[in-house]
Amino acid sequence: MSDTLTINISPEEMLERFTSVLLQLDFTKERAQACAKIFTNNSVDGIYTHGVNRFPVFVQYVKAGHVKPNAEPSLHHKFGGIEQWNGNRGPGTLNAIHATDSAMNLAKEHGIGCVALANTNHWIRGGTYGWYAAKKGFVFIGITNTIGVMPAWGAIDSRLGNNPFVMALPYKDEAIVLDMAMSQYSFGAMELSVLKGEKMAVQGGYNKNGELTNDPAEILASRRALPIGYWKGAGMSFLLDVLTTVLSGGLAGHQITRSGIETDISQLFIAIDISKLSNHSVITKTVEGIIDDYHQSVAADASKKITYPGERVLKSRKTNLANGIPVLKTVWDNIMAL
Amino acid sequence: MSDTLTINISPEEMLERFTSVLLQLDFTKERAQACAKIFTNNSVDGIYTHGVNRFPVFVQYVKAGHVKPNAEPSLHHKFGGIEQWNGNRGPGTLNAIHATDSAMNLAKEHGIGCVALANTNHWIRGGTYGWYAAKKGFVFIGITNTIGVMPAWGAIDSRLGNNPFVMALPYKDEAIVLDMAMSQYSFGAMELSVLKGEKMAVQGGYNKNGELTNDPAEILASRRALPIGYWKGAGMSFLLDVLTTVLSGGLAGHQITRSGIETDISQLFIAIDISKLSNHSVITKTVEGIIDDYHQSVAADASKKITYPGERVLKSRKTNLANGIPVLKTVWDNIMAL
Repeated sequence: MSDTLTINISPEEMLERFTSVLLQLDFTKERAQACAKIFTNNSVDGIYTHGVNRFPVFVQYVKAGHVKPNAEPSLHHKFGGIEQWNGNRGPGTLNAIHATDSAMNLAKEHGIGCVALANTNHWIRGGTYGWYAAKKGFVFIGITNTIGVMPAWGAIDSRLGNNPFVMALPYKDEAIVLDMAMSQYSFGAMELSVLKGEKMAVQGGYNKNGELTNDPAEILASRRALPIGYWKGAGMSFLLDVLTTVLSGGLAGHQITRSGIETDISQLFIAIDISKLSNHSVITKTVEGIIDDYHQSVAADASKKITYPGERVLKSRKTNLANGIPVLKTVWDNIMAL
Repeated sequence: MSDTLTINISPEEMLERFTSVLLQLDFTKERAQACAKIFTNNSVDGIYTHGVNRFPVFVQYVKAGHVKPNAEPSLHHKFGGIEQWNGNRGPGTLNAIHATDSAMNLAKEHGIGCVALANTNHWIRGGTYGWYAAKKGFVFIGITNTIGVMPAWGAIDSRLGNNPFVMALPYKDEAIVLDMAMSQYSFGAMELSVLKGEKMAVQGGYNKNGELTNDPAEILASRRALPIGYWKGAGMSFLLDVLTTVLSGGLAGHQITRSGIETDISQLFIAIDISKLSNHSVITKTVEGIIDDYHQSVAADASKKITYPGERVLKSRKTNLANGIPVLKTVWDNIMAL
């Protein structure tokens, strides 16, 4: 199957290609490089669905005018440790880095900082900002709303976003990072499984007859992705949308869904400066104790290692930095043709 | 089946009985009433597993000396909008109300406030503090760690807590409140289903052969509850434990598990004062728009209403205030014998 042929691309080559494409789209040099770096790093980290595989979609959004390459966020309100920003439809990645920086600056002053961002674009991979803040010494919580992709619990029409939720904190020179959407699987992951001719490990949504299935093609056809934990993930998705909307003053998921285009989304960034805690000098040891205990878990399959969120990223990063990033040839051909 | 015979108890009678039991346990009058009120309100709200059904367990903890009736929390560190408190093993309910009040006070000053609480006890129902803060005009996020009740993903031994997570915000005179543990079902809910001879609606854990099951008795026997969303809820549970532990400087889940007694737990309370936002005057309208859209969902079963988190509580509250709180006779007999 030529569709599944994989080639390895070095991070340098990928970064150069992404930068070059973005420069053609009127990004300034600095912003093209920063944005290309995020897509490349996500790929190096093994998050291909939110890296190289996503890049062509991002380019489409720029070409269609939904993402404004050089629009920068503007502050429209501030009180204490809270700031409300307008993303002005700039690139979601660059807006999110800016918002994370602002939240960290607030945290340095107030211990905790909260930045809400309206009218921004898809941040691509939420974990990007978790790793970024954690490696600078901050606890990070990030939330975004999205276009509707899941039904409310008990419903058949998709009014809920998958609304990714990120939690991160520093650990030694690296970080612990949870980056999870409220759907059991992202559409990106299901699309990749279809490309590879694979089923999902667990049920991920409904088929057209309203039955639960692990067949990604059937779920993509019905557009009925399953929330994590059934009613629980549906409820959490609802709250994440309400919080990002209320705190940013931006658009709610239903308004984004109605527009038919995933732009003008609302996000939230919370940072806590752990250097300001009384126990800051023992935190690494505390976390090490938790990880040590976790690693002592008895695996159901002795050949499989029990890992904490973010741990496998370190392994992918090491492998991909050494061997290059594995990319489906069809995907790379598409990127070279952009 | 006499075990499932239900009687109705008025809120006044329940409050009086709980208060009287706590007074016998050396609670001051004010603290006995405040604590009894929380257990009663949880029951009025229809959260019986964390109300009347839980009260005897709480009493056991007090009698065993794990909960110190009149111990009050003490502030041990403060920086800007962050405070770290020691719960001094006081009642988890009263400590949590105190922490929520402190977080709201910080939020009034800094827009956002964060209180971390070490060495506290089970807060019983996290939603209590979500409703409390939201009805006073605050966005609320609450997290607690717990004793180990679930395995890491891919593991068979229970090292993860179910670590309840709460998000709430004001809505008109009431609130929207999500209160969810990281396990698909609480052990309390499964115990109640066993009492009633019912199965769970979806798979909630493993039997002794390591197979997924919806039989609560089998899950209680194996002690292997399923995380929401499989690996996702396991990962989120891990992060919630790490964050509460790191920010409070208190005990981690593995240390609580090792002690064998669920005390000295760690919690986090974040409040945001929405009156400080630029859009505060239109927030009710914004949320109304989200709810209106959500209620337009097409139900798979036309006889069932699609509800948002907290909506059914309002209905239970109204019914129970009018008719009394339905309580299993065996449970009430037990409470009358305390």
